[in-house]
Amino acid sequence: MSGTEATVRAIHAAFNAKSVGLVGVSSDPRKFGYMALNTILGGGYEGGIYPVSPKGGELMGLKVYTSVSEIPVKLDLAVIVVSAESVPGVLLEAADKGAGAAAILSAGFREAGRPDLEDRIAAISLERGIRLMGPNIQGINYLPNKLCAMFFPVIKTKGPLAIVSQSGSVTAALSEWAADEGFGISAAVNLGNQVDICESDYLEFFAQDEDTRAIMMYLEGVKDGRRFLEVLEKVAPQKPIAICKAGRTTAGQKSAASHTGSLAGSHEVFEAACRQFGAVMAESVEALYDRAKALATLKRPKGNRVLTISSSGGAATLACDEAEAQGLSVPLLPVGMLDELKKLKLPALASLSNPIDLISLDSEHFKQVASLADKFDAADLLLMSFADPVPGAPEALKQLSAKLGASVAVSYMGGGKEEKAGRVEIQRAGIAVYPSPERAMQGIAAAVCEARYHRTPRERRQSMHVARYPVAAGAKDKSHFVPEPQAIELLAEYNIPYPEHGLAESAEEAAEVARKLGFPVVLKIVSPHVIHKSDMGGVRMDLLDEHAVREGFEIMVACVRTAVPEASIQGTLVCCQAEPGLEVIVGAIQDPVFGPTVMFGLGGVFAEVLNDVSFRIAPLSALDAEEMIHEIKGYPLLAGVRGRGPMAVGQLANLLLEVSRLVVEHPEMMELDLNPIRVYEQRLLALDARIIVRALPENPSNGHKANKRISTSNSC
Amino acid sequence: MSGTEATVRAIHAAFNAKSVGLVGVSSDPRKFGYMALNTILGGGYEGGIYPVSPKGGELMGLKVYTSVSEIPVKLDLAVIVVSAESVPGVLLEAADKGAGAAAILSAGFREAGRPDLEDRIAAISLERGIRLMGPNIQGINYLPNKLCAMFFPVIKTKGPLAIVSQSGSVTAALSEWAADEGFGISAAVNLGNQVDICESDYLEFFAQDEDTRAIMMYLEGVKDGRRFLEVLEKVAPQKPIAICKAGRTTAGQKSAASHTGSLAGSHEVFEAACRQFGAVMAESVEALYDRAKALATLKRPKGNRVLTISSSGGAATLACDEAEAQGLSVPLLPVGMLDELKKLKLPALASLSNPIDLISLDSEHFKQVASLADKFDAADLLLMSFADPVPGAPEALKQLSAKLGASVAVSYMGGGKEEKAGRVEIQRAGIAVYPSPERAMQGIAAAVCEARYHRTPRERRQSMHVARYPVAAGAKDKSHFVPEPQAIELLAEYNIPYPEHGLAESAEEAAEVARKLGFPVVLKIVSPHVIHKSDMGGVRMDLLDEHAVREGFEIMVACVRTAVPEASIQGTLVCCQAEPGLEVIVGAIQDPVFGPTVMFGLGGVFAEVLNDVSFRIAPLSALDAEEMIHEIKGYPLLAGVRGRGPMAVGQLANLLLEVSRLVVEHPEMMELDLNPIRVYEQRLLALDARIIVRALPENPSNGHKANKRISTSNSC
Repeated sequence: MSGTEATVRAIHAAFNAKSVGLVGVSSDPRKFGYMALNTILGGGYEGGIYPVSPKGGELMGLKVYTSVSEIPVKLDLAVIVVSAESVPGVLLEAADKGAGAAAILSAGFREAGRPDLEDRIAAISLERGIRLMGPNIQGINYLPNKLCAMFFPVIKTKGPLAIVSQSGSVTAALSEWAADEGFGISAAVNLGNQVDICESDYLEFFAQDEDTRAIMMYLEGVKDGRRFLEVLEKVAPQKPIAICKAGRTTAGQKSAASHTGSLAGSHEVFEAACRQFGAVMAESVEALYDRAKALATLKRPKGNRVLTISSSGGAATLACDEAEAQGLSVPLLPVGMLDELKKLKLPALASLSNPIDLISLDSEHFKQVASLADKFDAADLLLMSFADPVPGAPEALKQLSAKLGASVAVSYMGGGKEEKAGRVEIQRAGIAVYPSPERAMQGIAAAVCEARYHRTPRERRQSMHVARYPVAAGAKDKSHFVPEPQAIELLAEYNIPYPEHGLAESAEEAAEVARKLGFPVVLKIVSPHVIHKSDMGGVRMDLLDEHAVREGFEIMVACVRTAVPEASIQGTLVCCQAEPGLEVIVGAIQDPVFGPTVMFGLGGVFAEVLNDVSFRIAPLSALDAEEMIHEIKGYPLLAGVRGRGPMAVGQLANLLLEVSRLVVEHPEMMELDLNPIRVYEQRLLALDARIIVRALPENPSNGHKANKRISTSNSC
Repeated sequence: MSGTEATVRAIHAAFNAKSVGLVGVSSDPRKFGYMALNTILGGGYEGGIYPVSPKGGELMGLKVYTSVSEIPVKLDLAVIVVSAESVPGVLLEAADKGAGAAAILSAGFREAGRPDLEDRIAAISLERGIRLMGPNIQGINYLPNKLCAMFFPVIKTKGPLAIVSQSGSVTAALSEWAADEGFGISAAVNLGNQVDICESDYLEFFAQDEDTRAIMMYLEGVKDGRRFLEVLEKVAPQKPIAICKAGRTTAGQKSAASHTGSLAGSHEVFEAACRQFGAVMAESVEALYDRAKALATLKRPKGNRVLTISSSGGAATLACDEAEAQGLSVPLLPVGMLDELKKLKLPALASLSNPIDLISLDSEHFKQVASLADKFDAADLLLMSFADPVPGAPEALKQLSAKLGASVAVSYMGGGKEEKAGRVEIQRAGIAVYPSPERAMQGIAAAVCEARYHRTPRERRQSMHVARYPVAAGAKDKSHFVPEPQAIELLAEYNIPYPEHGLAESAEEAAEVARKLGFPVVLKIVSPHVIHKSDMGGVRMDLLDEHAVREGFEIMVACVRTAVPEASIQGTLVCCQAEPGLEVIVGAIQDPVFGPTVMFGLGGVFAEVLNDVSFRIAPLSALDAEEMIHEIKGYPLLAGVRGRGPMAVGQLANLLLEVSRLVVEHPEMMELDLNPIRVYEQRLLALDARIIVRALPENPSNGHKANKRISTSNSC
């Protein structure tokens, strides 16, 4: 049994515990020890509850044991609410009582400056085989076992959503939203300090959990980036995953600049990584909930065609606006359907296009029209938009959802009491209801996005074993710049085209090299101390003959000597000057969470002013490379505008794949910038390569292909 | 008394009616005539209700009159639910009974192919002085008079928001949302066909209504664009206005192209126009509600500094993310405040930065911290973020809001029963509560945006009497293109710089003109039949000497003759060739709703690929011109990037003002394109002018300055 399997079994056993020790109960309603017992009882747990407090006695009708060892049965799960200092002792006792897991609700560990206590419980967990949830959590709630082991809130409304959240309040809020409107949850877990069981483990568990149809995650970070992606990739096809990542704007606010390092905000990389491996992202906690509801209930749609059937013109227009904004298709009605619609006894003023505005509050009309839409395959998804009280809507929807091929989502607003009761009844039947047409359409868009992702053949999408290329621990302070001649050799190894060139140590030699290459040429200074060559006068362009090259050489060397007196000049690079063309940037970085990451963007103002770039975690699949080219806003420039033909997009995708290969085979590579790359209709050329490498630990046992490392000394 | 004053008085009298005739009642609960009576009674109306139905008898305890004329008292308001055909008769009877206004809920007019009926009631209104609301409306609800004259819903929760909506369902939904959570409304009106009283009239009324603090509008269009803007400009400083405009994406989906005509989507113009005159825009009906809540309750903030005080770290992070996304400032805590915070008995793990994460559920802590923030002027706005049950929160907030200088908004989520009761109690006290930190921050951002607009000195903002330049009725089919030499003369009248140039009818003459101008020159064909000159070979650039000019002339004429055999060629324009520079586009169009409108954008890929343009309704104020330059995404290019200094932005603003003057003084101008304009550090040059004019009616009595019209014949 693998470690992962054992962990999933441990979670399964803990969630399905038949006996729970609740250690640290209190009779004071203001204390967490009281709240936790109150909640577990309120949740209707049917197994044995064994409260523990040194005071003993009785609480809420249950005998209180004075210590864990006094409990007369084997424990499946210990729920711990004692002070942090007492947790290690309780854990040992719980292990003695056979507990396979403990949920440590207590705070006061690493977050309170006590990493020693956290190390201690981690050690006990390893030694005694007792698995840990937390510490520092709101608790866990597993509804199939009616086990609501939380401080707060009591949630009993069972439904298809599992919540995995790093914030206790977000756990509570999502649970309450789902319960209040009848949608319900299968489980809610708060992650806390994740000493042992982490977000990836819970994903693995919920992948197998029969009561869960979709997973929603609120994350502030992840424990192991590469493992998280591998688990996402594995789980997402089985159980859709929606993620809201906190910290989205800090990175976005970084001033944009042309080199990859500063453009690569880790939040942008995080979102790109999650999408790359199949998750649906949400930009707010409410959007997370809305999207997860759709993912849990909508049949995976075959396409992106939406038909709105509405009781109101206003709501229909709002739905249609949002559909277009979300990039959904709003198709015309099939002619046959129109003919049959006309035969129905619909209100005379009903508008029979898409959206269909029925101007009717008769649920029978909605049923008839939806059935016709399905018969004529008018759309992949139907939005039933009730914007008035529509009596009988729940019953009609239940009948429809059983027989329709299309996915159905519902918007219900402005329907008074009918709406409020209807919302709960419809959602209890497993159909998502939204409070406005726009939010419903955003849910639909999430389902379309998820379906599109998973329609791609798996082999095109990934085959890359992302976890094989872990985040290498490298010392940033021991990093250094690789001079361009050496960088160019590396590019050549990876089939990245660079202009024809030669090296020269004197003006005369430069002129000779230039004559062989043909004019015009560019001269570039070669010095480990001159990174930003242009700024230091280290580049001369448009040199049209040998005389100009000689003169350019002398001027350039003089300029650099003035600008950087300490620079050791090793010579110059003489390059054929590339024709003007469209400029793009390709870069690679070592993301601190996910390791080797590739960036793509249009050059010049697009990257600088608009931060119009895309990211993928390496290694890239062919599809990743295509997608990262397509998803930038400036893509039309590559596809061809103003009567210009399309650029060499296929070669560009290959170049991205090569950069991906380069960066995973060279974990010592900290930053790679190919800026600019000139792209033409038939070819492309990297005009500059800036590479920064770092010192890696002596014996990297991380499975990287044993490539020749790029030197990290300045001995070039 | 002006017409507007009379209308406002009529609305006032109707809303405050002491006697209402309800014409068309029914005893059948499925009929609108039943629903309307039921709703008016449910609303608690305390004046006299006089139901009318030919059947007579009694209904819901009220005597039913068989006709309006039978009613024994003077009517203040007639509420009409009879069939459309019967409405004119009922109106005449109501007028006889002294009714100053009628709310016509009945449908079946223009929207049902009966404009004749609509013309008839309009005529009756004019003849008899009875003012009309509707027809084809859900109804009206005016809470200060407990007058809920609607089919549905019964809304009695009074609050500070007035609803003006073109959709009945949106009217109902917004009313219910506000009532359900205790926020409340002052009034709700559904606009319908607006035969008489229109959205602008209601704005004028609510501006004066003491019970209304903010107005939210759902619009699909407006009756008179220029009047609407003038009313917005007048009302917005007194009563904040939030607007959601339906139809937002259709225009956005138009394929982007470089000429103004196709870039000017009327929705984009609509939004720009509303913002220009002081409204806050919302992109969804829920956002409309959220923003209006903030506008109605937050003290107009002095700046954009937000401090979040939260019970939970997760909620605090989400709030902070959204604050940054909304462009709000999240300042550090003042040192003095930090010192005093440390003296409070807050939880040991509380995080004392911004956001402040109290990790406390004690409302006293929130009160203490908010008071300190105010004392030290730590922020202009406070977000109190409760993400757990916080007992006593309503009381604490009531005390705070009375004494704080800063504006306060509340986010409450994950607080169970405490939250649900607290939300209502807090909102009854006039403080906006949102269900998530992100939505709260969006509300705050709306208040900041509104305050910033109205902080601008009025004289900088407008002095333009927008209604003086009405939307002129022009015949698009009689439009024609103005040849460039004539267009250039017009530019000169408006101080718009164009390269030095001369006209030539022969190759020899062209060479001579070029010699006088100096080289290089550009040749452009002059023909009324060649609009897109470059595409037809009608432009030759980089002509470096007389020989090249002669040759260029011959080639150009030959090319054009081949491409457009029927073109009459009147000669060529010989222009000094402008140096390379940053290119922008300035255009003007006649918007069908708002009339003369100016557009600005960066040239080339920015306009073509990214649709990065801004609009303002003409005439522009100096501030409008500055703002439209600043608000495009590519603005940094004008401000100076890559070591380049700032461009001549002041001259560009002047040019926009001149284009504005040009287009309002020439209502015959249908489309003006200055594309490109080259902008340099010290100057700018319009390199091309494409003008399309149209035929106007003979005697335009629209107050336009009597300028010499640009010829609309092809006689040039």
